[in-house]
Amino acid sequence: MTLIYLAGPEVFLPNAVEQGAAKKALCEQYGFKGLYPLDAELDPDAYDSPQAMAFAISRGNEQLIQQADVIIANLTPFRGVSADVGTVYELGLARGLGKTLLAYSNDVRPFAERSYAMFGPAEAVYSASGELAMIDRDGNSIEDFSLSDNLMIEGGIQLAKGRFMTQESSAAERLTDLSGFEALLQWLAAG
Amino acid sequence: MTLIYLAGPEVFLPNAVEQGAAKKALCEQYGFKGLYPLDAELDPDAYDSPQAMAFAISRGNEQLIQQADVIIANLTPFRGVSADVGTVYELGLARGLGKTLLAYSNDVRPFAERSYAMFGPAEAVYSASGELAMIDRDGNSIEDFSLSDNLMIEGGIQLAKGRFMTQESSAAERLTDLSGFEALLQWLAAG
Repeated sequence: MTLIYLAGPEVFLPNAVEQGAAKKALCEQYGFKGLYPLDAELDPDAYDSPQAMAFAISRGNEQLIQQADVIIANLTPFRGVSADVGTVYELGLARGLGKTLLAYSNDVRPFAERSYAMFGPAEAVYSASGELAMIDRDGNSIEDFSLSDNLMIEGGIQLAKGRFMTQESSAAERLTDLSGFEALLQWLAAG
Repeated sequence: MTLIYLAGPEVFLPNAVEQGAAKKALCEQYGFKGLYPLDAELDPDAYDSPQAMAFAISRGNEQLIQQADVIIANLTPFRGVSADVGTVYELGLARGLGKTLLAYSNDVRPFAERSYAMFGPAEAVYSASGELAMIDRDGNSIEDFSLSDNLMIEGGIQLAKGRFMTQESSAAERLTDLSGFEALLQWLAAG
């Protein structure tokens, strides 16, 4: 039985548990078993400090990733221009552990476009040859490689011979639309 | 000779090369060798597409991390509330490869405080018992564990028995102040 770690910012949604259940049901439909970060229910009273509880969650998630054969990461931008950093850490960890890396984003805009829209300078800067300078308001460069996010992310998936898919969801369903997720399950099932 | 991979958003600064040279000089001062992402100078004309060049950069960086014994990650928030996602991916990769994880941030504010300030609701929401609801403007929860960033990051460093340090830099020096970086080198040298 192929075990799939379900990484993504869903854990922060008001319906985090239901969203995880929906992903797990889809996994089962394709003959896989999904492992969701919230599977382990922790009792806040069992920990001496918020940090101790956070570290217990982290340990549990790392153990799930260790057990998994595959990670499917929801890399849809979350509170900013990039994917959720927790999800990105997990993707990197899975890469280091030699797992199969699959990921999707429900936002098709390139990283450079999103970054420039959110952090670009108040007045556009052009080069002598008339090209728009891809810099932010602090003068730092915005990477512009026609990718969906920071190059280490898609690069790692590519090095791992994994698969990254983007598709456009409505703003209301940006974080919950599972069609990209299901497309990856289909791809995996087709083996 | 201990090899240290120098991860961080410095690569996007206008003085990216100088900043890397400064970090490498400090490494040498403590008897280490620093490996910086921009060490490999790539020729854009050698690639068929921006993506191909991006993937070559990614491959080069992953190779440097493979070679390294230690990663020192600059997790100072970059264009948003969290660390640069490329840096976070690299930290996760280093964790999966069993490297020593060291990291610093030049911003001492807790993640919850920064996230709420940037993405909190227009009007604060309180529970029946009068507690401020740690949610963003979309109703998604903001994790509040008195940590510096997403719990997977500090959690991973803790699981790896690494070290994470925060210290406050002025806004102007937020991304370039190397005192936290040097403190980690001292800690490593003290072994």
